[in-house]
Amino acid sequence: MKKRQELFKKIGIVGLGLMGGSIALAAKKYKISQECLGVAHSKETFKKAQKYKIVDKVSRDFKILKDADLVILATPVETIKEIALLISKIIKKECIVTDVGSVKKEIVLKLEKILPNYVGSHPLAGSHHTGMDYADAKIFKDSLCIITPTAKTLSNSLSKIKKFWEVLGMHVVSMPAPLHDRILAYTSHLPHLIAFNMVYSLPCGYLKYSAPSFKEMTRVALSSPRLWQDIFINNRKEIIMSLKMFTANLSILEKILIKKDIAKLGLFLKKSQEKRTKLL
Amino acid sequence: MKKRQELFKKIGIVGLGLMGGSIALAAKKYKISQECLGVAHSKETFKKAQKYKIVDKVSRDFKILKDADLVILATPVETIKEIALLISKIIKKECIVTDVGSVKKEIVLKLEKILPNYVGSHPLAGSHHTGMDYADAKIFKDSLCIITPTAKTLSNSLSKIKKFWEVLGMHVVSMPAPLHDRILAYTSHLPHLIAFNMVYSLPCGYLKYSAPSFKEMTRVALSSPRLWQDIFINNRKEIIMSLKMFTANLSILEKILIKKDIAKLGLFLKKSQEKRTKLL
Repeated sequence: MKKRQELFKKIGIVGLGLMGGSIALAAKKYKISQECLGVAHSKETFKKAQKYKIVDKVSRDFKILKDADLVILATPVETIKEIALLISKIIKKECIVTDVGSVKKEIVLKLEKILPNYVGSHPLAGSHHTGMDYADAKIFKDSLCIITPTAKTLSNSLSKIKKFWEVLGMHVVSMPAPLHDRILAYTSHLPHLIAFNMVYSLPCGYLKYSAPSFKEMTRVALSSPRLWQDIFINNRKEIIMSLKMFTANLSILEKILIKKDIAKLGLFLKKSQEKRTKLL
Repeated sequence: MKKRQELFKKIGIVGLGLMGGSIALAAKKYKISQECLGVAHSKETFKKAQKYKIVDKVSRDFKILKDADLVILATPVETIKEIALLISKIIKKECIVTDVGSVKKEIVLKLEKILPNYVGSHPLAGSHHTGMDYADAKIFKDSLCIITPTAKTLSNSLSKIKKFWEVLGMHVVSMPAPLHDRILAYTSHLPHLIAFNMVYSLPCGYLKYSAPSFKEMTRVALSSPRLWQDIFINNRKEIIMSLKMFTANLSILEKILIKKDIAKLGLFLKKSQEKRTKLL
C-alpha cells in the first residue's frame, strides 16, 4: 500500500480533554502529521498527557506551537478567543488555525480578525464525558463536521481543513457561521437545555422511579456545566428563538390535553413520529 | 436442581404485541405456568402467533380464557377497560387478572368493579418498537414494575402477582394508583410529550444536521402514536401539572439567558447535573 503523504508537518492541539485528546489519538492513527504537539492548561492534564504519550510533545506554554502548520483550539467556547489572541503572537504567519467550538458566529468574527489563516470547525462528536480519560479516535467516524468559511477564508486552508476532518472519518458540510448557530440551537443546544431542565424539574423523590425514557433523554444533563454554560450564553439569541418555537408548540399540546382533543393529538403525534423516522 | 413449581396452571395473555409477546416468551423461559394461552385481536398477529408458537394456544376469541387462573391484559390503555368487561363474563371467579397499562388510576377504579380478583401492574419495560416481532424475554430483567393494590385487593392475589413479575426479573414496588400516575407523568409521560414536541418543532430542513443529542432525546418519538395518545389523554391532568412545573423552570432559564446571568445559569446547570448523577 502506498504510504499516504502527511497533510501537515507539525500539528498543535490546545486543550487535551475529550475532544483534543480524541483528535490527538486520531491524528496518530491516521498519520496526519509528522509530529503532534499538545498544550495542556492544568498540571493534571499535562502530567496525564506525558504519562499516556497522547501527543509527541506536551507543554503548558503556547511557545511550543511556534513551528506548527496547523493549530486546533479544543477548549471551552469562552476561552477560545483569549487563546487565539495569545497564540497569534507565537505561530507562523502561514499556520492554519481551526477550533472545535459548538458556537461559531462570534468566534469566527473575532478569530479571523486576529489570525490570518483561520477556518472555523464544529465536529459534532463527543459525549457527556469530559477529560482525556474518555478520548477515543473513533468518535469522529461517520459523524458530521460543519465548517464555517467566510469571504476572507483562504481556499487552500479551507480545503486542507476539510481534508483533515475527512481523514478522521467525518462527513464535512460547509455553511456560514450564523446559519450554523441557528441550526445547532435547534438540533443540539436547545435539546441540552431541555435535558438540564427536565432533571431540574423532577421532584427529588421521583428519581428512583425514573423510566428508561427519562434516563435516556437526560443523559446529556451529565455534561459539563462549565462547557454548556459557555455555549448557552454564547448562542443565547438563537437558543431563545428556538425555545419560543418549542414552547409555542408545547402550549398547543397543553390546550389539546385540556380540551381532550383526541383527533388533534393523534395528528400531532403521527406527524412527529413520521418526521422522526427520517432520522433513523 | 429442584424443579421450581409453576406459579399458575394456565395463564392467558390478551394482546400479543411487544409487551404481551415478551411476557409469553418470559413465561415460557421461566416455566411460570403449565400452559400459556394467547388472544390476538388482528388476523395478522393471530397468524404470526401460530407460526412462531409464541404461546401454546392462540385464539381470536376470549373464550379460550375460560380455564385460566391468571389473565394479563397487554393492550393499549383505552381498550383495557372494554376487554375487562368482555372477559369478566368468561373467566373463572378465582382467576387473577392484571394489566400492563402505563396509566393506572382510571383502569384500577374500573377494573376492580368488574373483576373480583384484579391487581394493577405497570412493568416499566419495552422500547419505542411495537409488535410481536420485537418481543424479547429479557426486557423485564432488572427493570422496575409498579403494582397498584387497593383496599379491595386480595392479599393472596397481590403476592402472586408480585412473585410473577419478580420471576421475570423485575424489581417490584407497590404504591397507590393515583401516586403512580403522578410520578409517571414526570418520569415517562412528560418526557415522551417533550420528545414528540422537539421533533414537531424542528424545521424540516434542519433534520439532516441533527446532533447525536437530538437523536437520542427524540428516539421515543418513534413510539406508536396510538399507544401514546391513549396514555396522554388518560393521564392528562397529571401530565398538565408536571408540564406547568417544566415550563415554569424553562421560563426561568429563558430569563437567565435574556439577562445573560452567567452565575445563575451555572448554578442551575450544576444543580441539575449533580441530581442526574444519582441516576447513573
